[in-house]
Amino acid sequence: MVIMGIDPGVAITGYGIVKYEGNKFSVIDYGAAITEANVALPKRLLKLNGILEDLIIKNKPDFVAVEELFFNKNIKTALTVGHGRGAALLAAARLGVEVFEYTPLQVKQAVAGYGRAEKSQVQQMVKIILNLDAIPKPDDVADALAIAICHGHSYNMLRHK
Amino acid sequence: MVIMGIDPGVAITGYGIVKYEGNKFSVIDYGAAITEANVALPKRLLKLNGILEDLIIKNKPDFVAVEELFFNKNIKTALTVGHGRGAALLAAARLGVEVFEYTPLQVKQAVAGYGRAEKSQVQQMVKIILNLDAIPKPDDVADALAIAICHGHSYNMLRHK
Repeated sequence: MVIMGIDPGVAITGYGIVKYEGNKFSVIDYGAAITEANVALPKRLLKLNGILEDLIIKNKPDFVAVEELFFNKNIKTALTVGHGRGAALLAAARLGVEVFEYTPLQVKQAVAGYGRAEKSQVQQMVKIILNLDAIPKPDDVADALAIAICHGHSYNMLRHK
Repeated sequence: MVIMGIDPGVAITGYGIVKYEGNKFSVIDYGAAITEANVALPKRLLKLNGILEDLIIKNKPDFVAVEELFFNKNIKTALTVGHGRGAALLAAARLGVEVFEYTPLQVKQAVAGYGRAEKSQVQQMVKIILNLDAIPKPDDVADALAIAICHGHSYNMLRHK
């Protein structure tokens, strides 16, 4: 199956598209959708939404995985993230791709083996699991790939239950 | 000109479409887009976005007006509102309608004549200005109409400067 992980934000949205077959992950594409701060918010969301839709159309993921809503950041961040997350979820919904959500704990557990792993450990595991030469930058991209891996593992476990 | 005011939210998004000509407002349409709590968030955003796009296509507003981001609510509300607001702004951006933002203070000032007006006074003025039989319900709808009126006044003043 093909899984697209998304780490949404208005300024930068990380994405990672992986294939998961026979218990093995391989990477299809990853990167970041960037929008300029001096552009009006509606246009930034449209750009973001458009980039993600193009990626979905091109790579036909079976699932989109995002981090669950979480509330430990400040209010301004939450509102802004909400805008970007809305644009990302809309892209998936419009193209009929089912969205799964995972907590940061679940992502760490799935990728690094335990829920209290450091960010750097998770990133290192992403590099190893996907057989990459380096840890993808910026963090948003590595996070998106981690979420995609998390969905692969979780979905697999679900199927075997 | 035709102005569409939007008061965005995921569960309920109020909208009000008014015509403003010769210093006089008349109402074209108003109502609320509702999404069900038991539906997955991406599908709720898609529904919301679709309703707003249909309204824009049908009524061809020259402008969309929304309340500016504000941060005095709790984080969970901010994140959720962000999702709905993103879906609303995307509808406008996709259809090429320019979006204007106003603070609650500006809306009260424009509709009720002073920035510290009570909500009920603003709603009463919306009813009078638009020559309605009753105050539109729920509040989100009256708020959306108030924002539309605010844009009419503000845009007019801007033009005369």
